[in-house]
Amino acid sequence: MPRSRERAQVSLENLHRIFTVPESPDSTLGRIDQAISDNLAGFLQEHIVALERDLAEIEDDFSQSRIPEEPTFVSAYTDFLKEKVVSQSVHTASPGFIGHMTSALPYFMLPLSRILTALNQNLVKVETSRAFTPMERQVLGMLHRLIYGGDDAFYAQWMQDSRHALGAFCSGGTIANITALWAARNRLCGPAGSFRGIAQEGMFKALQHLDCKGLAVLVSRRGHYSLGKAADVLGIGRENLIAVDTDDDNRVDMKSLRRHCARLNAEGIRPLSLVGIAGTTETGNIDPLDELADLAQELGCHYHVDAAWGGATLLSGTYRSLLKGIERADSVTVDAHKQLYVPMGAGMVLFKDPTALAAIEHHAAYILREGSRDLGSHTLEGSRPGMAMLVHAGLSIIGRKGYEMLIDHGIERACRFARQIEAHPDFELITEPELNIFTYRYNPAWVQAQLAAAPAEQAARINEILDKVTETMQKRQRETGRTFVSRTRLAPGRYRGSRITVFRVVMANPLTTDALLASVLEEQCEMAERDENRVLLEQIEALCGRREFKTA
Amino acid sequence: MPRSRERAQVSLENLHRIFTVPESPDSTLGRIDQAISDNLAGFLQEHIVALERDLAEIEDDFSQSRIPEEPTFVSAYTDFLKEKVVSQSVHTASPGFIGHMTSALPYFMLPLSRILTALNQNLVKVETSRAFTPMERQVLGMLHRLIYGGDDAFYAQWMQDSRHALGAFCSGGTIANITALWAARNRLCGPAGSFRGIAQEGMFKALQHLDCKGLAVLVSRRGHYSLGKAADVLGIGRENLIAVDTDDDNRVDMKSLRRHCARLNAEGIRPLSLVGIAGTTETGNIDPLDELADLAQELGCHYHVDAAWGGATLLSGTYRSLLKGIERADSVTVDAHKQLYVPMGAGMVLFKDPTALAAIEHHAAYILREGSRDLGSHTLEGSRPGMAMLVHAGLSIIGRKGYEMLIDHGIERACRFARQIEAHPDFELITEPELNIFTYRYNPAWVQAQLAAAPAEQAARINEILDKVTETMQKRQRETGRTFVSRTRLAPGRYRGSRITVFRVVMANPLTTDALLASVLEEQCEMAERDENRVLLEQIEALCGRREFKTA
Repeated sequence: MPRSRERAQVSLENLHRIFTVPESPDSTLGRIDQAISDNLAGFLQEHIVALERDLAEIEDDFSQSRIPEEPTFVSAYTDFLKEKVVSQSVHTASPGFIGHMTSALPYFMLPLSRILTALNQNLVKVETSRAFTPMERQVLGMLHRLIYGGDDAFYAQWMQDSRHALGAFCSGGTIANITALWAARNRLCGPAGSFRGIAQEGMFKALQHLDCKGLAVLVSRRGHYSLGKAADVLGIGRENLIAVDTDDDNRVDMKSLRRHCARLNAEGIRPLSLVGIAGTTETGNIDPLDELADLAQELGCHYHVDAAWGGATLLSGTYRSLLKGIERADSVTVDAHKQLYVPMGAGMVLFKDPTALAAIEHHAAYILREGSRDLGSHTLEGSRPGMAMLVHAGLSIIGRKGYEMLIDHGIERACRFARQIEAHPDFELITEPELNIFTYRYNPAWVQAQLAAAPAEQAARINEILDKVTETMQKRQRETGRTFVSRTRLAPGRYRGSRITVFRVVMANPLTTDALLASVLEEQCEMAERDENRVLLEQIEALCGRREFKTA
Repeated sequence: MPRSRERAQVSLENLHRIFTVPESPDSTLGRIDQAISDNLAGFLQEHIVALERDLAEIEDDFSQSRIPEEPTFVSAYTDFLKEKVVSQSVHTASPGFIGHMTSALPYFMLPLSRILTALNQNLVKVETSRAFTPMERQVLGMLHRLIYGGDDAFYAQWMQDSRHALGAFCSGGTIANITALWAARNRLCGPAGSFRGIAQEGMFKALQHLDCKGLAVLVSRRGHYSLGKAADVLGIGRENLIAVDTDDDNRVDMKSLRRHCARLNAEGIRPLSLVGIAGTTETGNIDPLDELADLAQELGCHYHVDAAWGGATLLSGTYRSLLKGIERADSVTVDAHKQLYVPMGAGMVLFKDPTALAAIEHHAAYILREGSRDLGSHTLEGSRPGMAMLVHAGLSIIGRKGYEMLIDHGIERACRFARQIEAHPDFELITEPELNIFTYRYNPAWVQAQLAAAPAEQAARINEILDKVTETMQKRQRETGRTFVSRTRLAPGRYRGSRITVFRVVMANPLTTDALLASVLEEQCEMAERDENRVLLEQIEALCGRREFKTA
């Protein structure tokens, strides 16, 4: 906690000042603010690349559990922030940060987000949001049209219709997925005869009413973990989230899916929803969305597409056909804080049927009154900020063509990087980029040759050691802080379905250059030479009975 | 949508610029940004008080459903934003905006929130948040200590323990309440014997395992509507959210509560949780938290306290005793974007037992790995921004004593305003302020006298007309845009429990003066003179058989 020699005083005047007097440009905070305005990239480069400091050590700076009694000067606090927080945060906007889905932001997002904070609107009700309400409706309408392609008349009728909502704006894809399945569950178990619906009577009576033993959600093994949370929260149970096998390209295996459906049917469990994925989190692949639509239609169940990552691909004339069939989904999740380049905290779920959200509608006496324009009557969250403004800004300023260029270049950059890896003797490409995400690992040519020839047990042992190499290298690279890739575990067909640890890269930052990507590989090669990894590679050598140690 | 004569061009260079070149201080956006820096209050006053413009008309500005093909210059977009959005948003920071829980923000929140946006951390995992992770843990620890008052050893052990979390940071009170009841549900229906727990097997099998017909959540009629959403989402059913009667002070009636418990028991429905309220949304009252704790203990059920509004009162030495008993709750919701004066999008739920959140723990292969420090394994949301930084800043800069002053002054201001209303011949105080929220209505002394003497049917008729007066006046005041109060419906004991429409005020803005409050009443008196209200008051007159029309 920051301390200053001069003591900040608690007084009405000082409190009043806090709410009315802006930070002087000469104050520490004013200077930082100015530095960010002037040169964000420079500021981040100089100050934000995390130093090689252990997290346990960082935790010491945040060990005080008492709320400070006395106030602190803003300048003293800002010094603390700069030294202990900003310098120890992750430079997510760095072109070398290619491990997760958080990327650089367009510059205009900074002053615009300050306007957003200054206005501090609350979108739950029109009384605290006014123009923000129709603006959010428009953003939902634009995304709806991007996915479903309704005509002008459709949007003229529904987009600003206060009794309905084309979707729900929310803090992110997880809430979006939960909202989609919540609405699907409530529609399937809606009021009928003397049954007043699951919203009123709960899951137990709903299943009695439907005369079945459970509801199931089916998605490929590559499904996002938020679907597990949804199954848990909604009372469906994680065991009823069926993880369906995939083909070698990480797309749901339709035959396996049909077998599961038949089994569930025999067990008296009703399919609530099929979930297709447009851009799997780990490998960026797209399920056969049209085939899934056919099956959902056949089963008469809800069809949700999780396009949190890949949805923005619809903005590209070149690649939008990869998502063919998405327009047949009953609901679609899209994250704006991913490939729409909006700051963290902006997700959406869109519903094909403009009346679908009626299944989760709710009202209260002081807001969300029936017939009000309040958006809060159709969202899981209550009070929420006007983040839709930043999506509106992105769509307007960058335009469809601008996004198209960003999407196209990301995919093409990913393809070039994949070829670079394939051509490199020390690396193995694990999954091909279909969008802009793929996986690979450090695996020198001689080990690859051994693996190809080794009997199953030996191959498994080699893979175990390579897993350690991958994990060690990923952690070391993260700590060094120049570049960053993430890691995950996959079960590629070529290793007979056994799970291996791999590097995962996400090519979303438009500032990432091919040269920088080459340096990522160089850094990893250097790491392979470190003792910790040499020891591991020597173990493989010993296992294979090779005499000389050789890294490439 | 904004248009500019010169056309913005789609090119790689322009896109690159968007991500790397800051807005020039001379650009429109640069100037607005500067104007906000220089004088937020002035900027808001000049530009943000909503003009008397119909919402339907505003909607016309947001009627285009196609995503613009071509890019737009930032300056052109900013002009659009200024004219169509900023000028038509709600001036929530205005001292005259006393109708909802959104208030003024301390100035330092603006530059700090820009730093937050620039850093764009993602708190779901430490790889995208680093120092933000221990900082958020510290904020949760500080709030935990404020509520539960553990000792240093407790927080040294638990606060930074990566396997657990003292609470969950989230976008707001609704998600906090859902998280609390989710954890409670999963603990009650945890794994036992061959039952693998509700998280795995779902609600249907959980109830079979518990051998009961349903789970119930009990809360007073003043409970927040998010609890209804929670009951719906969690598969409990809204009918099993039992709305218990209150006493004349809007506190849960313990006798009635016990009767409900007995009835549920007879029906084979198990109480999942009692919910106490510390600061009801509509009237700001506090349930008897200690008595509720006794009953929850007796029943062996979860005890949650929704202190979204009132939790900050614990920072006041003067008033914290009002919340006595909150320290016995199993979980507590507190919103930082309410009385901690943080921008929209910051809520928390704290759990007494540091292992309680294990009931909703989840993992994935690429993040949230077991043993990782990732906060995302204990939250309903996935990716989320580092809003905890702003709470940390508020607690550090304002300090406990500063918040105490804000809280105390708010409550005292509410009391003074209530006395002012009571003394005014044209108004009727409906609920007394216990914290800083209360309700009243326009009801001239002569009507009050008639009401007191009138038979039930006539009184009901008079109240119906007064409801129209209140609604008309509230809408008119909102449209005029000088000051703003909200409205709700309550059933005060003095009117034999029939529901009436009332004005609701929230005294949270430290810049609201007594003089301004007097002007709110003056404005309302002027409105009473308008034809629309005169007609209504004459109806009352006719009903009561009075000859002359008189407003005071």
